[in-house]
Amino acid sequence: MLRSRPTGRPSTSDVELVDVVVGSPEPGFVRVENLVMSVEPYMRGRIGGEANYAEPYPLDEPMLAPTIGRVTDSADESVPVGSLVKHEYGWREHALVPSGDCTVLTHDDLAPADYLGVMGLPGMTAWVGCERIARIESGDVVFVSSAAGAVGATVLQIAKLRGATVIGSAGSPDKVALIRELGADAAFDYHDGPVKDLLRAAMAEVGATGLDVYFDNVGGEHLEAAIRVINDHARIALCGMISIYNSATPQPGPNNLIKLVWRRARMEGFLLRDHLDAREEFEDRMAEWLRIGALRPVHTEFTGGVGGAWDAFLGMLDGNATGKAVVPLTRDPAGQDCKTRESGGMNSPDKEATR
Amino acid sequence: MLRSRPTGRPSTSDVELVDVVVGSPEPGFVRVENLVMSVEPYMRGRIGGEANYAEPYPLDEPMLAPTIGRVTDSADESVPVGSLVKHEYGWREHALVPSGDCTVLTHDDLAPADYLGVMGLPGMTAWVGCERIARIESGDVVFVSSAAGAVGATVLQIAKLRGATVIGSAGSPDKVALIRELGADAAFDYHDGPVKDLLRAAMAEVGATGLDVYFDNVGGEHLEAAIRVINDHARIALCGMISIYNSATPQPGPNNLIKLVWRRARMEGFLLRDHLDAREEFEDRMAEWLRIGALRPVHTEFTGGVGGAWDAFLGMLDGNATGKAVVPLTRDPAGQDCKTRESGGMNSPDKEATR
Repeated sequence: MLRSRPTGRPSTSDVELVDVVVGSPEPGFVRVENLVMSVEPYMRGRIGGEANYAEPYPLDEPMLAPTIGRVTDSADESVPVGSLVKHEYGWREHALVPSGDCTVLTHDDLAPADYLGVMGLPGMTAWVGCERIARIESGDVVFVSSAAGAVGATVLQIAKLRGATVIGSAGSPDKVALIRELGADAAFDYHDGPVKDLLRAAMAEVGATGLDVYFDNVGGEHLEAAIRVINDHARIALCGMISIYNSATPQPGPNNLIKLVWRRARMEGFLLRDHLDAREEFEDRMAEWLRIGALRPVHTEFTGGVGGAWDAFLGMLDGNATGKAVVPLTRDPAGQDCKTRESGGMNSPDKEATR
Repeated sequence: MLRSRPTGRPSTSDVELVDVVVGSPEPGFVRVENLVMSVEPYMRGRIGGEANYAEPYPLDEPMLAPTIGRVTDSADESVPVGSLVKHEYGWREHALVPSGDCTVLTHDDLAPADYLGVMGLPGMTAWVGCERIARIESGDVVFVSSAAGAVGATVLQIAKLRGATVIGSAGSPDKVALIRELGADAAFDYHDGPVKDLLRAAMAEVGATGLDVYFDNVGGEHLEAAIRVINDHARIALCGMISIYNSATPQPGPNNLIKLVWRRARMEGFLLRDHLDAREEFEDRMAEWLRIGALRPVHTEFTGGVGGAWDAFLGMLDGNATGKAVVPLTRDPAGQDCKTRESGGMNSPDKEATR
């Protein structure tokens, strides 16, 4: 349960793990045993109280997170027991979910975490950003920050599939190696110097003199460095600014926005909610790319189950995840990662743990 | 003639007024007696040496400026003597102009300065920014900075004609009064307090809770203040940033660009060169609005002729102009504003003075 709203960096005392009884579902509800949940950067905004792009999570309630689970009890025949479902009632092991808030997953060939990653919100964010906002085309020079992250690693691969030259940045040598493995033409670790110098070197490596697209996941120094070298008619897709999420005071913005005039460039923020009509084209294309092996899903599984989910969230914000950060919530058969809990029968209450 | 490239504020020693002999036009050229020239903010960039959006003016040559003049000698029968023409060879009293660089003006019902203002670059900039970049529609709440300037005063009026609610800002009580006269629903002098507070008060005055459009002519504090209060799907048209043109060091940008994500807003720079295909629709519509009195041209005429043009330019940058800043170049019949010069006959050389 969320107990307080941090301004700077969140701490352990902002949440509390509690045991509650999860009863049988009332009509129109199902009970779900959660298998895996997602931790995502946007959650930082909903934890803080500032009214920004999404409703804050209420205090003293379990938070929400995209989650995959198996239906263990159902009071709606359209979502029968045994269904694999996607819903938002994460941060708990068992959940009572309105059946209308469940999406029954039919492609059983995907790993559950894939529904949270390349086929989930981060994948669709990457898709919309590439196709509708940045409008990446063959021949574009594309720079993507946080390119080993859930969104960035997908952006990188979509851009390559679209015929672009791609430069990626990330925060560790391992991530840089992954970015190159995923097909980037150049990559750098932003700890190795001023971003503007590293970006210029990467551009030289690929023979580029400017950027047609910058897909921004971080803001701050990266954004200013990218604006320095945009080409005419460049597009900057603003997806998130992880560099500021844990900052209690506003950071100065890029000092070179006048370049947007000189280069007739467009900088545009976007949220998925405006692009839900893209879901079908997105799912079809991504499923095809996954099937033919053109797109590689990347996940990091954090251990500790629901009791470790908050640390997983903070670790993701700190850059300790590669690709999609997920937290398995079900009892680990090996008993190492998650606490073992007694599971009630189909009609008896389960325990729900929420931190 | 431009003698040096200032970094901070330009000074008198950056230019020199010289007398040169203007001969008869060679084939394909005409000689023009200039009536009035324009001074515009973009010239600051071309005076500085930085390669930005336009070629720097060469040193030790007369600079360029949109200018209206009368042909006094012609070696191209398509541009006969007596034609009223628009060209770029300003900062001089008489000019030899390639006939292909002349536009012969046919609507003799307009004042020469109107061709430089509402029907010229500033007017077309306003048109393109409103119609193609900000896409102002009926019901929009529009904020325009520098709203008593050549571009801003036209933006304000176009926005009102399109059915928007309009808030304007400017730098003096007289300008604020003019902005209201031109039809703005609210207006403020940005010297009266933090822009963010003044903007909020103006919004309250018109019953608006957010901005759908910000037409930015100044950058800096105005831009940050506008971003604070944008509505979902807001459009920010970046036209220029006069607040930084005379600044030798880069100024920090807005600290709240994350709002562009939360509000799914678009910020886009533009230059006229990409929108030359809009000329016909622009001229037709503006001419109609002028004819029916729906649009009011606003000029400031700086005195001193060519000898005062540099001071006029600096004064315009300092905000001492209302509407389009123009400099009459021809001899003043009253002899007060411009130096009287002997004009040669049709085939004899004239003097050309360039500062």
